[in-house]
Amino acid sequence: MILTVTLNTALDITYRVRSLRPHASHRVSEVAERPGGKGLNVARVLAALGHEVTVTGFAGGHTGAVLRAMLAGAPGAPADALVPVSGATRRTVAVVDERTGDTTQLNEPGPQISPAEWAAFLGRYQELLPGASAVALCGSLPPGVPVGAYAGLVRAARSAGVPVLLDTSGEPLRRGVAARPDVIKPNTEELAELTGSHEPLRATQDARRRGAHAVVASLGADGLLAVTPEGHWRAAPPAPVHGNPTGAGDSAVAGLLSGLVERLPWPDRLARAAALSAATVRAPAAGEFDHAAYTELLGRVRVTGAAGAAQAGSGPSW
Amino acid sequence: MILTVTLNTALDITYRVRSLRPHASHRVSEVAERPGGKGLNVARVLAALGHEVTVTGFAGGHTGAVLRAMLAGAPGAPADALVPVSGATRRTVAVVDERTGDTTQLNEPGPQISPAEWAAFLGRYQELLPGASAVALCGSLPPGVPVGAYAGLVRAARSAGVPVLLDTSGEPLRRGVAARPDVIKPNTEELAELTGSHEPLRATQDARRRGAHAVVASLGADGLLAVTPEGHWRAAPPAPVHGNPTGAGDSAVAGLLSGLVERLPWPDRLARAAALSAATVRAPAAGEFDHAAYTELLGRVRVTGAAGAAQAGSGPSW
Repeated sequence: MILTVTLNTALDITYRVRSLRPHASHRVSEVAERPGGKGLNVARVLAALGHEVTVTGFAGGHTGAVLRAMLAGAPGAPADALVPVSGATRRTVAVVDERTGDTTQLNEPGPQISPAEWAAFLGRYQELLPGASAVALCGSLPPGVPVGAYAGLVRAARSAGVPVLLDTSGEPLRRGVAARPDVIKPNTEELAELTGSHEPLRATQDARRRGAHAVVASLGADGLLAVTPEGHWRAAPPAPVHGNPTGAGDSAVAGLLSGLVERLPWPDRLARAAALSAATVRAPAAGEFDHAAYTELLGRVRVTGAAGAAQAGSGPSW
Repeated sequence: MILTVTLNTALDITYRVRSLRPHASHRVSEVAERPGGKGLNVARVLAALGHEVTVTGFAGGHTGAVLRAMLAGAPGAPADALVPVSGATRRTVAVVDERTGDTTQLNEPGPQISPAEWAAFLGRYQELLPGASAVALCGSLPPGVPVGAYAGLVRAARSAGVPVLLDTSGEPLRRGVAARPDVIKPNTEELAELTGSHEPLRATQDARRRGAHAVVASLGADGLLAVTPEGHWRAAPPAPVHGNPTGAGDSAVAGLLSGLVERLPWPDRLARAAALSAATVRAPAAGEFDHAAYTELLGRVRVTGAAGAAQAGSGPSW
């Protein structure tokens, strides 16, 4: 079982409007709702790849109830190990402008987590770890969760001998990296914020020096850049992919995790991650991936680089 | 008991953001939720004025359940005679830009109402009418409700001898007016759409010729213009009021309805409606009114005009 942790789950709402104009009133022509938050998106893709997945984190209020009902009804539904909280799960609203195709995002902050609720989560996490072949720690922290939360969750996974991937940003990422996660998957912006460098290779190497065993940076249209104890590689689709990038990073995480538990060599994991990511950009619905595009792209992703070329760190690898 | 009808109830959500920029991602700093839809706003103000109120219309899905729970918990809670439907009550999202104070509105269309659900509502409405001292028909129609719905509801109220106020727009207003409601309360835009005239007095008189016994036009900062069988008047606060106009029209409707059932003379009804409307603009929360401001403004609203001066129509008055 692969475990994904989403401390700030969300009910993702998508609105289509003819044209978004600030200070005007808009009639929404189409409404879509789905369970969201990075770890739930990762779980959805892992389930579609045939993996057994358990999701944990927090859910509460009427939005949490809707999220859990939708999760239970989804194809290949992941096991629901979410911890109930008294606050309401946040909503995110994505407003799609039909004229330009662009999206405007409104993200609620999330429920206040009490110390007792945080303790309940830690208990649940410790129960779940022994059954996990890998764990992904994903996304932002809701109010009330300590900023060093991911560092503790990384250490607990490592103590349990479970490979751990961290995908977050800002101070939670900075602290989490120092706890030596097996993989981090920052995007260009997150990587620059962590390291102060806007040069991807330099920043990726610096992120390893800060504690991550492997760093897989998602560089948007330029694909993935991986610096690992086994070597460093770039993986990119044969041509730039056009579409909606929402969820592309989460699909890349699913690709990396599934490749990890299947013990694929790094180049194959990266090809899968890059193909899934591109197939997500191509799918019409945000955060879904186009299965036919994935199969087709998988054989055409170019992976370049070399084993043994990593210039920093030499920790244990998996 | 005063009956308010809200066929397209809503869960009103208000987001505060630092500055709304299309195509950007925004962190919402504050989230507020309340039961909405014009008739529920009218009922809230009527209850605050000490009137017994019953609300009907449709509610369904998780948003409908939240709306009903909040309604039951509100101070002076109106009696809930909402008809359950299988679709989900719509949400409206008001995004308040903290920099400019302006609001951007996103309105979901509302649930699809089946013919059986519409028939169930008509049965409920007929049951409620005999106990009503007045009825207000408020807001837009959800999908599936016939465009002539309000015309039928106006006729049913008149047959039952219950005074009926209609507050809607577009084709539902046009058809509803022809069924001879006792009062309509269009704003400048709705009045112009109905009559083709942008000159308020001319348009108000024309709306009476189309069938409304009394027309009370809300002219924003210029207050109210009433053309009735008893005379015509203008009512305005002593100085322009600054603030959030959301719900000001609904408060005016509550003022008119409460004055009607208390058998106040028209000038007193209009003074109350204008003062409530201005006190709503002044309140910090959208759709609430400032009680102290209301009391203070009530004595200072200027009502000008004369009895017997109406130039069109001479139907029965109340």
